[in-house]
Amino acid sequence: MALTLEEANRVIAGAIAKAQELKIGVCVAVCDSGGRLLAFQRMDNAIWAAVYGSQGKAIASAAFGRPSGDLTARAEHPTLRGIQAAEGGHMIMGQGGVPILRDGVVVGACGVGGGTAQEDEDCAQAGADKL
Amino acid sequence: MALTLEEANRVIAGAIAKAQELKIGVCVAVCDSGGRLLAFQRMDNAIWAAVYGSQGKAIASAAFGRPSGDLTARAEHPTLRGIQAAEGGHMIMGQGGVPILRDGVVVGACGVGGGTAQEDEDCAQAGADKL
Amino acid sequence: MALTLEEANRVIAGAIAKAQELKIGVCVAVCDSGGRLLAFQRMDNAIWAAVYGSQGKAIASAAFGRPSGDLTARAEHPTLRGIQAAEGGHMIMGQGGVPILRDGVVVGACGVGGGTAQEDEDCAQAGADKL
Amino acid sequence: MALTLEEANRVIAGAIAKAQELKIGVCVAVCDSGGRLLAFQRMDNAIWAAVYGSQGKAIASAAFGRPSGDLTARAEHPTLRGIQAAEGGHMIMGQGGVPILRDGVVVGACGVGGGTAQEDEDCAQAGADKL
Repeated sequence: MALTLEEANRVIAGAIAKAQELKIGVCVAVCDSGGRLLAFQRMDNAIWAAVYGSQGKAIASAAFGRPSGDLTARAEHPTLRGIQAAEGGHMIMGQGGVPILRDGVVVGACGVGGGTAQEDEDCAQAGADKL
Repeated sequence: MALTLEEANRVIAGAIAKAQELKIGVCVAVCDSGGRLLAFQRMDNAIWAAVYGSQGKAIASAAFGRPSGDLTARAEHPTLRGIQAAEGGHMIMGQGGVPILRDGVVVGACGVGGGTAQEDEDCAQAGADKL
Repeated sequence: MALTLEEANRVIAGAIAKAQELKIGVCVAVCDSGGRLLAFQRMDNAIWAAVYGSQGKAIASAAFGRPSGDLTARAEHPTLRGIQAAEGGHMIMGQGGVPILRDGVVVGACGVGGGTAQEDEDCAQAGADKL
Repeated sequence: MALTLEEANRVIAGAIAKAQELKIGVCVAVCDSGGRLLAFQRMDNAIWAAVYGSQGKAIASAAFGRPSGDLTARAEHPTLRGIQAAEGGHMIMGQGGVPILRDGVVVGACGVGGGTAQEDEDCAQAGADKL
C-alpha cells in the first residue's frame, strides 16, 4: 500500500527531531515509490541548496531501493550518470537518503540535506524508523 | 522578515482546508521570496502531475510578485519564455499560485495543483490569507 | 497493490489483440503508478515513432490519472507545458493512453501508438479492461 | 532481416531465465538495429533505476555494435560524450548490454539492469544466445 500523507509527515517529524537533537538545520523530503514528492519541510535555519539535495537523494533512494549514499562511490560511473540523465536529472547520488520499505517493498524514500553527509543520513534514517 | 516554516505550514493548512471544502485533492507548495521550496504537502487523492504544477506556480508567483495566472496570457512572449528558460525551467505560468506579501513586500508564494485552474487559485489564496 | 509484470503483460496482450482486430501495427507500453516502464511490446509492423508515443502517453495518463487524450486540448497551456518540462520531458499529452485503476486508485497506465489517435486509445482501453 | 517481436521476446525470456538462476531481479530491454525499443520486461523485484539502465545499455550496444561494457573505459572521452549528447542522451556506456548479430550484421541489442554489472551482462548474453 502506498505511503499516506500522514505517514510521510510522521517520517519528516522523526527526521526533524533528530536534526534538532544534532542542533542542525535541514530540509527533509519524502517521496513515493516512483520518486514523486509527498511532503517536504525546510527548517528555518537550513540553507536552500538543501531544497534540491534532500529531494534528489530521496529520488535516488527510491529508484535504487537503497541509501543514496551507497551510490556515491560509483556516481561518476557511466551507468549511474546515464540513468540519472535518462530519468530527467532529478536524482542525487549523495549520502542523506534512505528508502522506506513496507513488508520488504520500497514504498518511498526520505532524503535530508543541510548537515554533514552522515548527519543527513542519520536524520533520514531516524525519520524512516518512525513507520 | 522571511516566512518561517510555521507560517508556511499555516498557509498550507489553509489551502488544504479549502480543498477539502471543495472536495478535491491537491498538492500545495509554499516557497520563499527566492522561489525555493519551504514546505509541501500532497493530499492522498491528488494526482502526481500536480507535484510539479504546484511548485512551478509558486515559483512564478514569487518571481513576478503576482498571481501566476496573471502571466498566462503572455506566457508565450519571448521575454517570459526567456525568463523561464534562464531560470532553469521550473516556473509555471498558469493559474493556481499567489504571492505572499508582508508589509507590501513579497516574502514567498503559495502554489496549488490538482483541481481546476480556478479552484487551485482559490485554495492558494485561502492559504495565503491565513497569514 | 502495485501492478505485477504478469498483469502488465495481460494488459499488453489485450491491447495487441485489439490492434490485430483493427489490422494495425502498434507499440504498447505499460507503466507503474509513478510512470516508470513495466512492460513494452512493438508489433512487427509498427513505426518506431510509436516507441516514444506509447510510453509518453502512458506516463501522462499515470501522472494525471485520466486518459492522455483528455489533456490534448490544453497541451499548449503553460501549466501543462510546465509540468511536462519539470517532470523531465517524458510525458506526451495525446490520445492513446489510459490510466489503470485498482479499487479507484491509479496503479499504472497503458499507452499505445501507431494507429490513429482513436484506434490507439481503443487498444489501450481494451488492454486496461483485461484487469 | 530485422529482429521480430517474437525473437525479441525469446531474447528477453533467456535473460530472465538467467536472472532467475542468479536469484536477481532485473529489467531487460531489446532494441532494434537503430536503438529503438522492441520489447521490455521489468521483473517484479527489479529497481526502477534499471528501467533506464537497461534501455541505455541496449542503445549503446546497438550504436557501437559491441557490448556496452567495452565502452566504459572511454566513456569520458570527448568523442564518446559528444556522440552520446548528439544522440539525445539515451545511451549508457556501462556493462550490461550486448549487440545481437545475424550473419555478422547488428540487428539489435539486449540491455539488462538491476544486478551487478557482470550479472547484467551475463543475463544479456544469455538472452542474445537464444537466437
